[in-house]
Amino acid sequence: MHPRVKIKTLLQSGRSGYETTVKGWVRTFRNNQFIALNDGSTSASLQVVVDREQTDPALLRRIVTGAALSVTGTVIPSPGKGQQVELKATEITILGDCDPDTYPLQPKKHSLEFLREIAHLRFRTNTFGAVFRVRHALAFAIHRFFNEKGFVYLHTPIITASDAEGAGEMFRVTAFDLNDIPRSAEGNPDFRQDFFGRPAHLTVSGQLEGELGAMGLGEVYTFGPTFRAENSNTARHLAEFWMIEPEMAFYELEDNMNLAEEMLKYLIAAALEHCGDDLELLGKRFDEEEKQKPQQQRSEMGLLEKLKFCLDQPFQRLTYTEAIALLENSPYQKKKKFQYPVSWGMDMQSEHERYLVEKHFKKPVIVTDYPAEIKAFYMRQNDDGKTVAAMDVLFPGIGEIIGGSQREERYDRLLQRMEVQHISPEELYWYLDTRRFGTCPHSGFGLGFERLIQFITGMGNIRDVIPFPRTPRNISF
Amino acid sequence: MHPRVKIKTLLQSGRSGYETTVKGWVRTFRNNQFIALNDGSTSASLQVVVDREQTDPALLRRIVTGAALSVTGTVIPSPGKGQQVELKATEITILGDCDPDTYPLQPKKHSLEFLREIAHLRFRTNTFGAVFRVRHALAFAIHRFFNEKGFVYLHTPIITASDAEGAGEMFRVTAFDLNDIPRSAEGNPDFRQDFFGRPAHLTVSGQLEGELGAMGLGEVYTFGPTFRAENSNTARHLAEFWMIEPEMAFYELEDNMNLAEEMLKYLIAAALEHCGDDLELLGKRFDEEEKQKPQQQRSEMGLLEKLKFCLDQPFQRLTYTEAIALLENSPYQKKKKFQYPVSWGMDMQSEHERYLVEKHFKKPVIVTDYPAEIKAFYMRQNDDGKTVAAMDVLFPGIGEIIGGSQREERYDRLLQRMEVQHISPEELYWYLDTRRFGTCPHSGFGLGFERLIQFITGMGNIRDVIPFPRTPRNISF
Repeated sequence: MHPRVKIKTLLQSGRSGYETTVKGWVRTFRNNQFIALNDGSTSASLQVVVDREQTDPALLRRIVTGAALSVTGTVIPSPGKGQQVELKATEITILGDCDPDTYPLQPKKHSLEFLREIAHLRFRTNTFGAVFRVRHALAFAIHRFFNEKGFVYLHTPIITASDAEGAGEMFRVTAFDLNDIPRSAEGNPDFRQDFFGRPAHLTVSGQLEGELGAMGLGEVYTFGPTFRAENSNTARHLAEFWMIEPEMAFYELEDNMNLAEEMLKYLIAAALEHCGDDLELLGKRFDEEEKQKPQQQRSEMGLLEKLKFCLDQPFQRLTYTEAIALLENSPYQKKKKFQYPVSWGMDMQSEHERYLVEKHFKKPVIVTDYPAEIKAFYMRQNDDGKTVAAMDVLFPGIGEIIGGSQREERYDRLLQRMEVQHISPEELYWYLDTRRFGTCPHSGFGLGFERLIQFITGMGNIRDVIPFPRTPRNISF
Repeated sequence: MHPRVKIKTLLQSGRSGYETTVKGWVRTFRNNQFIALNDGSTSASLQVVVDREQTDPALLRRIVTGAALSVTGTVIPSPGKGQQVELKATEITILGDCDPDTYPLQPKKHSLEFLREIAHLRFRTNTFGAVFRVRHALAFAIHRFFNEKGFVYLHTPIITASDAEGAGEMFRVTAFDLNDIPRSAEGNPDFRQDFFGRPAHLTVSGQLEGELGAMGLGEVYTFGPTFRAENSNTARHLAEFWMIEPEMAFYELEDNMNLAEEMLKYLIAAALEHCGDDLELLGKRFDEEEKQKPQQQRSEMGLLEKLKFCLDQPFQRLTYTEAIALLENSPYQKKKKFQYPVSWGMDMQSEHERYLVEKHFKKPVIVTDYPAEIKAFYMRQNDDGKTVAAMDVLFPGIGEIIGGSQREERYDRLLQRMEVQHISPEELYWYLDTRRFGTCPHSGFGLGFERLIQFITGMGNIRDVIPFPRTPRNISF
């Protein structure tokens, strides 16, 4: 018995003339002779050549799409196209049969909608194998990037009592039996009797706790799940998704921008370096999808082109006020091509962000210094009394990919903004404490992991870049 | 203005004779002359020497424990002990004051209990700085280990409809207003009207979903938060904790053991390699803690000794049946030194596990093939009809650190075990599907991240190795 070798290793080495064993699942079986065997290590399948004369017909009948096999044989140079080597089988063992009449995955193209219904099996398709290998490579690149810079990975809490951040609707967490909730004399739920002794929710962001870490450890980042109980059934929303949120003591807005730009380029470069095969496959898929769209809606760039567009150019930096002036004077505004008219004070829409990136600058853009009214309480107030030291990074195709700011480090200013936004200083005493004791300029930003994966894989629906999407009325698996 | 340098970088280089700027927080200020400045990058503080004659007394008064400073000066060789270089300050800027009368962290030893109450500030102490840097280094080492082996990092769902695993009490997740729950005609909560259209909970394990990934991607691992709504107020329990759960197609029990042993050694080696300073500090703390204990309860090994004990030796492997026989014939059993008497079929207690590791074999131990009755439904049944292909890895001081098994890949056998344990095949149809379509031998295990950090840092209470612990009636920050 030869030790098992992974198909990626076998194909990458390109070496031939030796015996080995591989294990995997049958993707296709042609002419009772050619098995395409895949073990998940790469999007490429290994061609296994069966000697149909010498093989038991009963065994041959069991070699069907989806069956798990162990194959021992000799690696030989492949006469066929598309691969350097193939495996000439000498011994085939069926590890697990697969009934073709009931197996939902047939050797044909299935719709993404259908595959979402069988998310427990979609890992076995080319597209989703590629998507989840890219997802892995990006997660690892994120950890490597921050580790190399001396950041500390901080696990901020998932269950939180804080509902003060105003970042959207929250899920409630309880150990109560909903059939039998203890009540106070007034008839309200008596949360003193619940597990945590008070109302608890799922976090919408680890930022505030991340800041606590940064004010002792210097530079930290979170990478964890966050939640929104918003009833949005769109291709852009999930109830459960993963966020990366770095927070850095002693960083001002420009340091923050530099870090965000460096990180995004590092991640794109990592995907290109480690996922070449998978991105090529996804790039072809992207082109096919685009062809289905009306001409006007098609992407001007292919998938790899978009990645290089972001990798090769310095990001254009300008203020919100400059961006609005530019949009107001743009041909699009004059020809009334924007759905939402432009004026100072507005929250920029995706169409405006994409205009800046794709039409005007033709490079990624960082917009800074937004009006205070449309940004969160914790962003640092600028001296003009109108704007805050916010920054949004805008990418082609999707608009905002990162949102961040220098944080308001001045106790009095922060308190004042909390009052304006009706956020309780008593609830967030611990957040204010960092401004009372040894405060310092600091900054941070947030990156939605699934948005990043969508950008890099070209997958149009966010449900197709997370293994088991949670959306309204959907909690399967 | 010189670009800021991190204190770790400055101290590690040992170079002197140049001007630079550092930023950090004052740990202590002695004789109006010596500032110990820490920026979180290392447990070591930089000695900053102030020229007290040339410095404004008003400024000197603001240099107090906890204040945030920017210091520019010249790096010079240090005449003092404990550091190669120090910084002769030429310019000191107070970034943030700290009122010594209200600042909870004084330059003295605080109890861990007190520091838990101010978890938002404990990052600024030596002990917790070290613990959370070690936590980071271990998290990164886990990702690096699996990435090097070609595993795919899989984000399994946090919110789940599955409550079938029987791994403990679960938290409920709902978008209902608990004051106003929609009711069915029978008066029960109408979950069809809840966010997901059915009851939802927080996950207790990503294993089952991990297996789905492994059956397409080959080798996967999870690293995410898991939850237990158990009302346990102990030094060993958290309501929210992080788990690492690898699942591998084509691995049998021995492959599983090999992976677990290799991983644990890799992680210990990584901590020793990357966290030397922090582990030295934690080792001293551990020794001091042990000295407070009665002689009999003291650890026989120091912290670093325990790490090397696990790193340097092959783990002893034996079956549960062999382990029970060994314990039954042990001097401890004969002298009735075990609190729980030993017999085949029992769930081994920590005292038995530690006896095997610390007294008998004097090395880490892997016990395999436990009685089916005390293990979960998904573990592979052995041919003896009594035991399953389980494995527990036992470590000194703590007992079980890893639990795993070969998974039952045979559809009929799995179904039969689910029936015995009253687990609904309809609910877990997706889990059974992997056994219906191309099943194969596969294995996996689980490692509690906080248990690992406790082992490596020597921290006795699990609440001291996670930034913001969640326990009954405790959800601060």
